[in-house]
Order: sequence, then C-alpha cells, then structure tokens
Amino acid sequence: MIELQPLNVIPNQADLLVTHEAIHPFVHRTPVLTNRSIDRMAGAKLYFKCENFQRIGAFKMRGGASAALRFTPAERLRGLATHSSGNHAQAVARAAQELGVPAYIVMPHDAPRVKIAAVEGYGATIFYCNNTPRERQQALDSVVERTGAAFIHPFDDYGVIAGQATAGMELIEDTSVVLDCIITPVGGGGLLAGTALAARYFSVKAQVYGAEPEAVDDAARSLVSGKIEINESNVTVADGLRTNLGERTFAVIHRYVPKIFLVSEQEIVAAMRLIWERMKIIVEPSCAVPLAAVLRYPEEFAEKEVGIILTGGNVDVDKLPF
Amino acid sequence: MIELQPLNVIPNQADLLVTHEAIHPFVHRTPVLTNRSIDRMAGAKLYFKCENFQRIGAFKMRGGASAALRFTPAERLRGLATHSSGNHAQAVARAAQELGVPAYIVMPHDAPRVKIAAVEGYGATIFYCNNTPRERQQALDSVVERTGAAFIHPFDDYGVIAGQATAGMELIEDTSVVLDCIITPVGGGGLLAGTALAARYFSVKAQVYGAEPEAVDDAARSLVSGKIEINESNVTVADGLRTNLGERTFAVIHRYVPKIFLVSEQEIVAAMRLIWERMKIIVEPSCAVPLAAVLRYPEEFAEKEVGIILTGGNVDVDKLPF
Repeated sequence: MIELQPLNVIPNQADLLVTHEAIHPFVHRTPVLTNRSIDRMAGAKLYFKCENFQRIGAFKMRGGASAALRFTPAERLRGLATHSSGNHAQAVARAAQELGVPAYIVMPHDAPRVKIAAVEGYGATIFYCNNTPRERQQALDSVVERTGAAFIHPFDDYGVIAGQATAGMELIEDTSVVLDCIITPVGGGGLLAGTALAARYFSVKAQVYGAEPEAVDDAARSLVSGKIEINESNVTVADGLRTNLGERTFAVIHRYVPKIFLVSEQEIVAAMRLIWERMKIIVEPSCAVPLAAVLRYPEEFAEKEVGIILTGGNVDVDKLPF
Repeated sequence: MIELQPLNVIPNQADLLVTHEAIHPFVHRTPVLTNRSIDRMAGAKLYFKCENFQRIGAFKMRGGASAALRFTPAERLRGLATHSSGNHAQAVARAAQELGVPAYIVMPHDAPRVKIAAVEGYGATIFYCNNTPRERQQALDSVVERTGAAFIHPFDDYGVIAGQATAGMELIEDTSVVLDCIITPVGGGGLLAGTALAARYFSVKAQVYGAEPEAVDDAARSLVSGKIEINESNVTVADGLRTNLGERTFAVIHRYVPKIFLVSEQEIVAAMRLIWERMKIIVEPSCAVPLAAVLRYPEEFAEKEVGIILTGGNVDVDKLPF
C-alpha cells in the first residue's frame, strides 16, 4: 500500500499522479458513457464520467481514500471520523473498513435512508445530530475528543481535493477526443477544485466550469464577489450541493474556474429524468446539474466536446422527484 | 450492408455468426457488469449482460434487425409491420428508420407510455388496439393488407431467434471465465431459444435456463407437458413476459433448455430494486426475473459462474413497482 504525505498547499501535478496510484486499490476506474440522443438535444458531444458506478456509489470514495492514506498508520489506528449528509460518510466508512480501523460518522437525522443504511453496512458507528452546521460540528468534536479519531473534512482539505481530482484525470485520459470543457456540480467544491487542477495539469485545453442550483448559488456569488458567500436557504432537490465553499476549495476555484452556471430546480429534475430514461443509469439529482446547464445555455456549448462528471447514484428510489 | 437469407429451420452455428456480423451496424456491443455485493448475497459469481444499454433500450433490437435484413430490399420498401406491447415495437420502428422504410406498429392502448413515445420518436405509424391476442392479430392483418408491409413476429421466427442469440454470443465471448450457466427471462421465448443456441455452439459447457414469473408459468408447464401451454392470466409486474411460447421458440427450448425457474411477484420486485440500488442501472421488471431465481434457489447456483441477460431498461419511472 502506498502511504501519502499530508498536503498543506494546492496539490501539484506530481501530487495528483501519486494520489491516483495510491487510491487505486480503493476505487473503480469508472466508464465514460456517451448518448447520441442526448447529444442531439444538447447540440454538443457529451462524455459522462460515471462516478455513480464508483465504489460506495459516488466519487467521494476517491477523496476519502486519498485523505485516509495521508494519516500515519498509528494515527489511523484510533479510527477515522467525519460529518456528512451522505456520500462522504460512506466513503470514510468504507475506507476505514478496508484499512481495518473504526469509523465514527456524524450524520443528520434527515439524511437519505439509503445512505444511512450503507454507512451502517460498512460497519461504521453513526452519531445522529440535527442538520445545522453548528450541531454537526459539536457532535463531531465530541466524538473526536472521546476516540482520538482522525477527522476527514468532506471537502476543505487538499488531500480530499487531490483524491477528487482523479476522476477528471481519468475522464481526460479515457476520452478519445480533446475535451473543450469539463463541468462538475459544486457543493463544498472538492470535486470542482480537483477537476480544475486535473484539467490544468493533464488536459490540452479543457476549461473547467461549475454548475449549481439557483436555490443554493453561493459558489456563483463567491466567484463574483471574490470571497466565500453563504447560502441563506438549503432547499434544493440536489441534496449533495447545499454546502458552502471552504477556504481551500475556494482558493483553487477562484483561481482556475472562470464561470459557474446556475439552473432551476425544474431543470435539474428534467435533466435527471433524461439521464434515467435515455442512458438507463441511476444518478442522484446533484448529478444532473451539469447536464441541466448544458441544456439551458446551448450557445455556450454548441458543437463542443464536453466532459461531465456524474457524481453519484445513491438515490432513495422511494422518494423520486418525478 | 450484409443481406441475410430467410431462415426456415433452427439456425446453425454459421447462421449465428453471419447474423452477428450483419446486425453490427444496428446494435451496440453492450457491457458485461459484475457486482461484488450482489455476488455475496447470491453465493455465486454473476455476469450481467446489459441489454438495457442496447439501442432502443432492449435486446429486441437484435432480433428486429436480424429479421428485417432477411427480407429483400424490394420487400422492405413497402415497410415493416408488427404487433408488440413494447420493446419489439421499438426495435422494428428503429430498424425501419435506419433502413429508410416505413414502420407500422400495432400496440395495445395500455402499453407503457415511455414505449409508445419511443416508437413515435422513431417515426413509426402506430395503430392502437385492445390488448387481446385476437384484436392485435386483426389489427395487424388489416395493416399488412393495406400496406403490403413485411411482418416481423416478436419471437416466433428463426430470424428473430438468430438475432436474439447474439446477446448470448457476446456474453460468452466477453466473460473471462467459463460460464457454468446462463439464465434469461422467458416470455415468447425468442431470447431463451437464441441463448440456448448460442451456448450450444459457442460455450464450453454453459447450461441455459429460463426464469419466469409464477403468475405466467406457461413456459415451465410447456417444458413439463411437452406441448405449448397457455397462460390463464397475464397479471404480472414483468410486463414483457406475459406472452405464451411459439412453435419455433418451443422447438428450440424443448430440445435445449433443461429447466425453467419460477419466482413470485415479490421476488421480482425485490430483485429489481436490488439491481437499481446496488448496480445503479435502470432495468425493467422482466430483467429482474433471472436474479430473483438465483436468489430463490441458491443451492442450484452455489459457487457457480452464472451469466444473466438483463433484457431491457424501458421502464416508466412514474410507475415504479416499489
């Protein structure tokens, strides 16, 4: 097993390469799918990197593994801890299981049932809390204090960002054409920041954009104002994207991402349904945000080769938005 | 384009090879997926041939193309016609569109909305009828009489059977292990018969089994009695499997298929849900019947290498059975 070094600055090209190598035993190399009928609707060529087929059903496995491997074996022995409404929780639980150490996960009561069940399935100990940043933090602090576990932040961590970058690296490598751009959803910004770094280091020319629900447009506002903006509401069908940016993700996004596209709730649900019906794959609402952006702003993507990262497939099939 | 010869007897090995070559421009080579957590539940190694990713969303594209290419260009010019509750309708409509000829499709009023929309999308003319064998036949006869179109039966046709066989050929070729058996759902029997031929000609040892809902167990009863049995009811969640066997499909199945496994409606829905939640792919209820059989009869499949053909993904996401 390759042990990784802690990362206290923006990862460089070598950091991403060694991260990709190190997390290899923890992740699948997911396929890149295309769909002619969606291409026709979009007037562009779309390449979907299917992280819904990733282990734990989401790209978060990459960042979780990357961060876990940066602790020393002695540090890891006391366990891994995090707070998360879902996919990051599963990633940390699964990484801990593979590493043979305990996992302590703080989750909000209202997290999707399917995600709670999965975290339990990986043998983690769950601590429930109310879904406010403050209570999550308190619950986490108390767990870490009692156990001495190593905390892995869901996104504001250069180790996590380096892990998320590997999805974009594979997308660039596995696409036979030269991509004009890559679009990812943006919540806390780990994936968007990582993808921006991957494109900068490994793509000939791909521009990286974010896509975000209008209802939680903190990242788009942050890009304009030049500082981290906060969401007033967290009501969106894209439950993975409610979070605000962190210092580290913003540092990368501010520097390397020129634009974040906003889409409505209806556009998200319609794009999600389109992916389900045409591609026959299960994706979470958050996944559909980039496709919704391509369909809403066709002039920006006409005739372009567009990479899209489908972030996860952990949806509660009893509670579909359509 | 390779033109195929009409097939009036059970296809031989060469027939299947040339069919596979000829339909190549009309179909995708679909992937074979595996899933560790489902393997653990089943106590077997399962290889899922994903015909839900096939063009038109189902394996029927194979048989439709294979049959269409057996008419002369002059015969095809007057159009292709069929009756079907769904996927075969789409296959014939799509084949006609690719061949640049008209398609006339007789569909029951209560066919899934998503399938009707797809047939329309391929430019076919739809004739609606009540969902009884007699009215479907009458509507079809009238269409054929008026247009002179070439009729393609949904399954009771050796050209169709040869086309459906190509899914099993690819599954056998693309699986790195030697399969012990392959299981397909059975409705009219085109896929089961084709798969049985594919295994006989191209597999070292794979036994081919059918899987069928208890509620429409005509094929299982036919195997026992040695003649084609009829369903009293057609009430099953597996809407693709309501049909009885045909003469040609029964001729093959009776000779080469040793057993058909029966499963309950609840077992079908549970297996469908398992595929959705664990594999993150969209499959129709009919698709889930073979997995339901593997889970119900674990002693039959323990430690075996089992191929499963996932037949299609054209499900109405507004009307899920869970």
